[in-house]
Amino acid sequence: MKQIDVMKDILADNNKIADSNRKLLGNKGIFTINLVGSPGAGKTSLLEELIKKFKGEIKIAVIEGDLYTTNDAQRIEQEGIEVIQLNTKGACHLEANMIAEAIADLNLEEVDLLVIENVGNLVCTASFDLGEDIKITLLSVTEGSDKPIKYPIIFQKSAGVVVNKMDLLEHTNFSIKQLYQDLRNLTENIKIFEVSCVKEEGILEFGDYLKERIKTKKLANGFA
Amino acid sequence: MKQIDVMKDILADNNKIADSNRKLLGNKGIFTINLVGSPGAGKTSLLEELIKKFKGEIKIAVIEGDLYTTNDAQRIEQEGIEVIQLNTKGACHLEANMIAEAIADLNLEEVDLLVIENVGNLVCTASFDLGEDIKITLLSVTEGSDKPIKYPIIFQKSAGVVVNKMDLLEHTNFSIKQLYQDLRNLTENIKIFEVSCVKEEGILEFGDYLKERIKTKKLANGFA
Repeated sequence: MKQIDVMKDILADNNKIADSNRKLLGNKGIFTINLVGSPGAGKTSLLEELIKKFKGEIKIAVIEGDLYTTNDAQRIEQEGIEVIQLNTKGACHLEANMIAEAIADLNLEEVDLLVIENVGNLVCTASFDLGEDIKITLLSVTEGSDKPIKYPIIFQKSAGVVVNKMDLLEHTNFSIKQLYQDLRNLTENIKIFEVSCVKEEGILEFGDYLKERIKTKKLANGFA
Repeated sequence: MKQIDVMKDILADNNKIADSNRKLLGNKGIFTINLVGSPGAGKTSLLEELIKKFKGEIKIAVIEGDLYTTNDAQRIEQEGIEVIQLNTKGACHLEANMIAEAIADLNLEEVDLLVIENVGNLVCTASFDLGEDIKITLLSVTEGSDKPIKYPIIFQKSAGVVVNKMDLLEHTNFSIKQLYQDLRNLTENIKIFEVSCVKEEGILEFGDYLKERIKTKKLANGFA
């Protein structure tokens, strides 16, 4: 019996394109984030705050993944930066070939930081490399502190976790202590940022971390 | 060139098994819900409250879908009802064949209402019929009122939406008015329940609706 492992083929094809995206972006000295999180965790809000506070210092471009709408891209466009909308027509995650197309439409000479906002999904997004430097997972305190245990793969693959909606912490049973413990058990060196987009708290720390990563990448790729 | 539409085959196979599940459950007079929602929307909490308030009146059994852990099933088991844990080992949704296996392990003579708690995911869960009578989507107000527009398929396929975490409404920019409008545009007769599991509000209305649906199904299937 011949057996075809469809998923393996799909992932191998995806990874090839992801590597070529990574090479292209690296050659331009661009640092790229794959931003993932549950629906409503606050991915677009985090981006809005980041852009507001850092667009004078960092040249940011955004690729917005969404099933059907352009709502999020419209929000980002209002911040006055370049944004490309990708509609997956119902698919549950972005894939590297979609990013390859989007990159072709961006003016890469004018970008230090490319943020790819993935579809709201903690499962499927974990399997598809887009060519990013790092994954950042956004977790809002209203989702509960058990999420790293329940959806471990995406957290394991993330360089950092942004804990959002900290302003609502007192109204939940979310345990920050448990979260740190569980995340560190999954991946020892993971960075954790406590953020409130509503109160504009913690954005600077997250942005400073990104600035450092951008600088390191530029140096490694021979940019002054 | 021969082209194989893998997804179509997978769904066709799934639907056959789903129909057989539905027939089997119907013959036993069991009303079945496929409960979906984002990670952390409060699916298990809603079930806990429903069981607490209705286990004297309705014989409830639960199938818990989760990637790896048995956390949610343990919570449900504490309520003293029969629960089967399904671990998808990383897969993003339940499929009908998993339910067929779980049903085989349940004592169906002792069940009026079977609740299948799906994996936390608003996208992939929409494509897979499990053999349920209705889908109920749980949406927490902290996720934002734009979710039906951004993830329309799952809401379109739902008989009802439970709007959870109403106790946190005042701390969010969630628009109940917009939600009702968007949901009614998607599917005219959708039922909407405003719930706070923390404050134990709105559970009775939701449970009464289920009682009515259970009764109607039993009558239609020749149960007195």
